[in-house]
Amino acid sequence: MLTKTESQERVFRLQVMLRSKDIHAALFIMPIDVYYFAGTRQNAILWIPAEGEPLLLVRKSLSRAMDESPIAAIRPFPSSKEFASVFSEDLSTIGMTFDAIPVQQHLFYSRALPGRTFVDISMMLRELRSVKSPFELEQLRLSAGKLASVFAEVPQFLKAGMRELDLSAEMEYRLRKAGHEGYVRMRAFNQELFFGLAVSSGGLNGGFFDGPVTGKGLSSASPHGASCDEIRVNQPILLDFGGVFNGYISDMTRMFVIGTLDAELQRAFDVAIEIQELVRRGMKPGAICEELFFAAAAMAEKAGLGSCFMGMPGEQAKFVGHGVGLELDELPVLAKGFTMPLQAGQVIAVEPKFVIPGKGVIGIENTFAVTDDGGLRLSDLPDDIVFLGA
Amino acid sequence: MLTKTESQERVFRLQVMLRSKDIHAALFIMPIDVYYFAGTRQNAILWIPAEGEPLLLVRKSLSRAMDESPIAAIRPFPSSKEFASVFSEDLSTIGMTFDAIPVQQHLFYSRALPGRTFVDISMMLRELRSVKSPFELEQLRLSAGKLASVFAEVPQFLKAGMRELDLSAEMEYRLRKAGHEGYVRMRAFNQELFFGLAVSSGGLNGGFFDGPVTGKGLSSASPHGASCDEIRVNQPILLDFGGVFNGYISDMTRMFVIGTLDAELQRAFDVAIEIQELVRRGMKPGAICEELFFAAAAMAEKAGLGSCFMGMPGEQAKFVGHGVGLELDELPVLAKGFTMPLQAGQVIAVEPKFVIPGKGVIGIENTFAVTDDGGLRLSDLPDDIVFLGA
Repeated sequence: MLTKTESQERVFRLQVMLRSKDIHAALFIMPIDVYYFAGTRQNAILWIPAEGEPLLLVRKSLSRAMDESPIAAIRPFPSSKEFASVFSEDLSTIGMTFDAIPVQQHLFYSRALPGRTFVDISMMLRELRSVKSPFELEQLRLSAGKLASVFAEVPQFLKAGMRELDLSAEMEYRLRKAGHEGYVRMRAFNQELFFGLAVSSGGLNGGFFDGPVTGKGLSSASPHGASCDEIRVNQPILLDFGGVFNGYISDMTRMFVIGTLDAELQRAFDVAIEIQELVRRGMKPGAICEELFFAAAAMAEKAGLGSCFMGMPGEQAKFVGHGVGLELDELPVLAKGFTMPLQAGQVIAVEPKFVIPGKGVIGIENTFAVTDDGGLRLSDLPDDIVFLGA
Repeated sequence: MLTKTESQERVFRLQVMLRSKDIHAALFIMPIDVYYFAGTRQNAILWIPAEGEPLLLVRKSLSRAMDESPIAAIRPFPSSKEFASVFSEDLSTIGMTFDAIPVQQHLFYSRALPGRTFVDISMMLRELRSVKSPFELEQLRLSAGKLASVFAEVPQFLKAGMRELDLSAEMEYRLRKAGHEGYVRMRAFNQELFFGLAVSSGGLNGGFFDGPVTGKGLSSASPHGASCDEIRVNQPILLDFGGVFNGYISDMTRMFVIGTLDAELQRAFDVAIEIQELVRRGMKPGAICEELFFAAAAMAEKAGLGSCFMGMPGEQAKFVGHGVGLELDELPVLAKGFTMPLQAGQVIAVEPKFVIPGKGVIGIENTFAVTDDGGLRLSDLPDDIVFLGA
């Protein structure tokens, strides 16, 4: 449950940002944005004026929103006739998150609140949410811990001859029983994710997903994640899963091999570990996001692995880490073009990976918090490749 | 795989609709809309002029899109400079699906194609997709059959004392191993769904979800579906799951009881079966959507169950059936306000349910195709409540 104090601090930080841009109020309609401030993911919208108290308007379920939310003013969603009168007319410049709200929704609110100017506050909201409070850091640590505990069980169920799909199902089953909430929220348009990836040979397939490894998936309608390919001995097996607990998402990748591993793949793994450590050491307040990516890419290049860093040649993702929190794709992104400095309390999944054509996918991923001492790991599962007897 | 003939037929039907509204071209950017016409769900956009050949522009993965799609003209996504030159300037009125595309995307394409007028073709697209081809009906039948086969296994793993979450995990595990693709696509803004519902006492909780039963879920961040409540004897246990196979979604609900069932709940179930049959008989071309809902609601009212039909008192959903296909919430909807006539080949999940405060949730759901003889069931699992020994 979101406490009243935590909710008020989030609202206050937003209000400072709104005032700095001369925006009179924010109107949040994306469920997870409403949840961040109001502590409830019911069907509701949240009005936060640049000064004063927020107002939560609930379509369904009002009783549940009232049970869950520390917001003082909670009311039923007004009728079309009453709608405009609920909001002060003086507040004429209104921020909404244009990155995520559909055009029809924008038109609806433009008509419901005539004479106002609507502006995009997507980046403001995302920057605000990128810095986690102590409460959120604890939630992310719990999430990463639960996720790691399921990764630790993999040797009990990974067998040669099972399909990637079977391995994925075993992982998903254990995550669910550990309390994984299932639905993995992503913000970016055009992305869809189910739990994560359990891939071996199928990992060599390219795909739409904006990450280093996509997987073959089960059909052209769902071309992501595990396939029906059989898992074979002496091949790298990559497991990359998000943990979703109490809404907070951690992200982790580990490698498994039944038998022995090709020397080039082992070397690529060692380079991935070195890159992870390089990035981790650099994750201090003030460090520039894209510089950490450039340093990582340079290390891959120097090792002769530049063309398969973060994806197969020609389909490489151009980042080495992404923020996580209530969504899997939060700010900051350690990528070219992201010139903002890191801030203490940001949480980033760092995932140096290689896709080596004809050989396989390999890499590592852990979730770190930005601190004065560099990245602080949120879970302590060893990074080593887990070798199982053939 | 989508055949060339099937793709061409879908494009042709759209072109007729575009011309009837004087719209010069459609620009689809939602992944599942692109998939419907082009047979690939890569990161791509699809241009369909009202006359002539479609053009698929692919961000990632181009090679995979070319492997999967029967579209003749497939090219890499153009640079900003080249973008406008790819599309004929004569085509100035362009349709997009405003129900699903974010404001930022709309602004991007408005700037990339200056001087054009963009109009909303959401309803046109949804109406087109609501009528399934013989190929799609076969896909939906296969989907419903696989879903039903997992429902048939429930007596093997349902036990008193397990949590709703454990029951959900067992169901999800078996569905995945049967080839369920995981991610359940929904179109409506503000909806999120993970697999489905396994609920008993937790089903009495209200929630945001636009359906008769929501479930308590695992936290206020994920307030939907199974909870950690224990499943007890002599209580109704409702399983409502979507099957996603080769992209096509079927929907099914069955009831289970360990021990015996309260007489009022049994009676409500019998009424639900009667309502399902009433609606099924009416599912003929030409029948008006809302009239089927009114007839269903009247039957519930006559049985003295009006106040708990399709949800708990005060939080009732106002429909009795919804279209399914590539998304869980397709047209048509058997609901007040939907005055369009049914068409042969539409596929509807009919789900009369009751939420009886203090007692439990109960109902039935099957997926039917609209035919001249009324609704044709897409799977043949018996509707009866499954009673297990306590």
